[in-house]
Amino acid sequence: MNQKKIAITKPTLFIDKKKCKENINRMFSKAKTNNLELRPHFKTHQSLEIGSWFKEIGVNKITVSSVSMAEYFSSQWNNITIAFPTNILEIEPINRLAEKITLNLSIENEESILFLNEHLKFKINVFLKIDVGYHRTGIDPTNINLINTILDKIDANSLITFIGFLGHAGHTYKCTTQEAVNEIHSKSLSLMNKLKEAYIIRYPNLIISLGDTPSCSIAEDFNGVDEIRPGNFVFYDLTQNRIGSNSIAQIAVAMACPIVALHKERSEIVVYGGGVHLSKDRLEDKEGTIFGRVVRKTKNAWGDLIPNTYVKSLSQEHGIISVPDNEIDKYKIGDYLMILPIHACMTGNLMKSFTTFDGENISRL
Amino acid sequence: MNQKKIAITKPTLFIDKKKCKENINRMFSKAKTNNLELRPHFKTHQSLEIGSWFKEIGVNKITVSSVSMAEYFSSQWNNITIAFPTNILEIEPINRLAEKITLNLSIENEESILFLNEHLKFKINVFLKIDVGYHRTGIDPTNINLINTILDKIDANSLITFIGFLGHAGHTYKCTTQEAVNEIHSKSLSLMNKLKEAYIIRYPNLIISLGDTPSCSIAEDFNGVDEIRPGNFVFYDLTQNRIGSNSIAQIAVAMACPIVALHKERSEIVVYGGGVHLSKDRLEDKEGTIFGRVVRKTKNAWGDLIPNTYVKSLSQEHGIISVPDNEIDKYKIGDYLMILPIHACMTGNLMKSFTTFDGENISRL
Repeated sequence: MNQKKIAITKPTLFIDKKKCKENINRMFSKAKTNNLELRPHFKTHQSLEIGSWFKEIGVNKITVSSVSMAEYFSSQWNNITIAFPTNILEIEPINRLAEKITLNLSIENEESILFLNEHLKFKINVFLKIDVGYHRTGIDPTNINLINTILDKIDANSLITFIGFLGHAGHTYKCTTQEAVNEIHSKSLSLMNKLKEAYIIRYPNLIISLGDTPSCSIAEDFNGVDEIRPGNFVFYDLTQNRIGSNSIAQIAVAMACPIVALHKERSEIVVYGGGVHLSKDRLEDKEGTIFGRVVRKTKNAWGDLIPNTYVKSLSQEHGIISVPDNEIDKYKIGDYLMILPIHACMTGNLMKSFTTFDGENISRL
Repeated sequence: MNQKKIAITKPTLFIDKKKCKENINRMFSKAKTNNLELRPHFKTHQSLEIGSWFKEIGVNKITVSSVSMAEYFSSQWNNITIAFPTNILEIEPINRLAEKITLNLSIENEESILFLNEHLKFKINVFLKIDVGYHRTGIDPTNINLINTILDKIDANSLITFIGFLGHAGHTYKCTTQEAVNEIHSKSLSLMNKLKEAYIIRYPNLIISLGDTPSCSIAEDFNGVDEIRPGNFVFYDLTQNRIGSNSIAQIAVAMACPIVALHKERSEIVVYGGGVHLSKDRLEDKEGTIFGRVVRKTKNAWGDLIPNTYVKSLSQEHGIISVPDNEIDKYKIGDYLMILPIHACMTGNLMKSFTTFDGENISRL
């Protein structure tokens, strides 16, 4: 790190641009190899500048998870999917966006379409959100009556075009082996391909869109899939590492946290860096519940995990780091630790900007 | 609520000013009755405007948990304690604050004092942070050698004045009965009074400062205590309610979250309102792990809890609400729910502003 340019005085979220661009390139190549459109989910970084790194390599369609994010990115992107159940209370900004860009909404109930039929002023595309087994949102893929009812209402409206089925296998986040991820992914493929077969004659251009970072990182079979929407892979994190999506070396963000106290009697370090910085997202791992792991500092970046050195608990501004007994003397007050986050999306959201090793500040929504 | 003025289109954090001011007045009266200085912790609201409600009733000293918060509040407050281990990397803003206001730092190790001895340019006061049993930060109160070593170094520096012992019984947050809180509080009192007796001759003006909202809300005995620093009580929340600090009716903030999907088959509502709004702080309660509870909407505010209606899980933007089977038909897409937070400090930090029932927007750091 360029110590001259970067004075670390409080929790600072660093981005390793090289790793981040490698993550982007790797997923882009995988999509190309498998004949898939990469429509990355930008909720993880929410940054126009990081978005531009995707644009440079030829990505031109993106995914977001709120109307606010779509508004932010619409200054530079003209094809945006909001992969979140349509919030009809935001009809005004939806109409503004629909006038300006190609806007794709996610629909999973009749009520939203009935509302759009009355209030929509400009053309939009819609995906039907299908529940591929996560059971958070989406239509049961066997509920053909509901699918047909919604499709009939869509077809009757000249402003709304059905473009395909969208799924998100968020239940892969509970997996701890690549085999388990592949098993879930295979089921998603099977469900989505059945729908594709059933509707391809009525909608010859319909696309199948799948999304989660674990499946997109681990799976090799994408038979029948037209586009993928992973998001977290841009940074990766400890949760994804636990699942098997990435190596520790591929994690592209780390938080620098000043050491403010040392407690040798319990082999703990207190850092300035709490739940308002790292988020309270947690991981059940070999040590129990953890909130982050400490990596070695290197000259221009960060390195390997320091074994058995992890964030044991977080309060609002404090982080408590557990350290092996015989290593506590290596640390001193006024130095800082580099901590890998449990969930990079939540940490990025809290920090609101990323610092590069050159001291550049990358802003975000 | 004044529906004309307030269009709820996305997650919106409402504040009930009346309840909030009642919470402030109740704690202020309790402090007065017990002959205690109320030095409220402003990390919960981090708002100059809400701070002014304290000023109106005669509060003139405050507590914060970061140098950044001290800088923010120093525009209107001239006596601020930073109840967080001194972060020597922030010596520049510490010096700026020390020049401008009465700044009280929390010290728990020799290293910080040695550093301040070299770099401090203006007068400050310091508290010694004592570990009253929470074991997060602070000096073991039986470690008289360390206490004396630090005090000797402080006394040798004309810029630094020792003003007392500061404790925070954060372990009350694990309690689920008022008796358990009182037991912890009694131990804190006993530890702190022993220190007071031991040092009152050397420092006739030393004060004993205690802090947590559960003890300050529940306890009646404050023998030997000079000031209290509760913070969360300004809003309260479900965690404090579980501990026994407050009634549900005293909780002064609630999040309005648009309903975007209904899943009758599993009796769940999907709202726009996720971990980036409510925070991932959780509570182990009778239903298992919960992330919030739904209250009835009333004309000008919100009312009682709706039984068995709670936030079951959160992802980045989604909240999943579990509802009794026979009540799911009462809800409709395009309406919104009012949700009480698990931890008001974290929710406030994420939302960055509070909306009153008159549609006024109260900003914060």
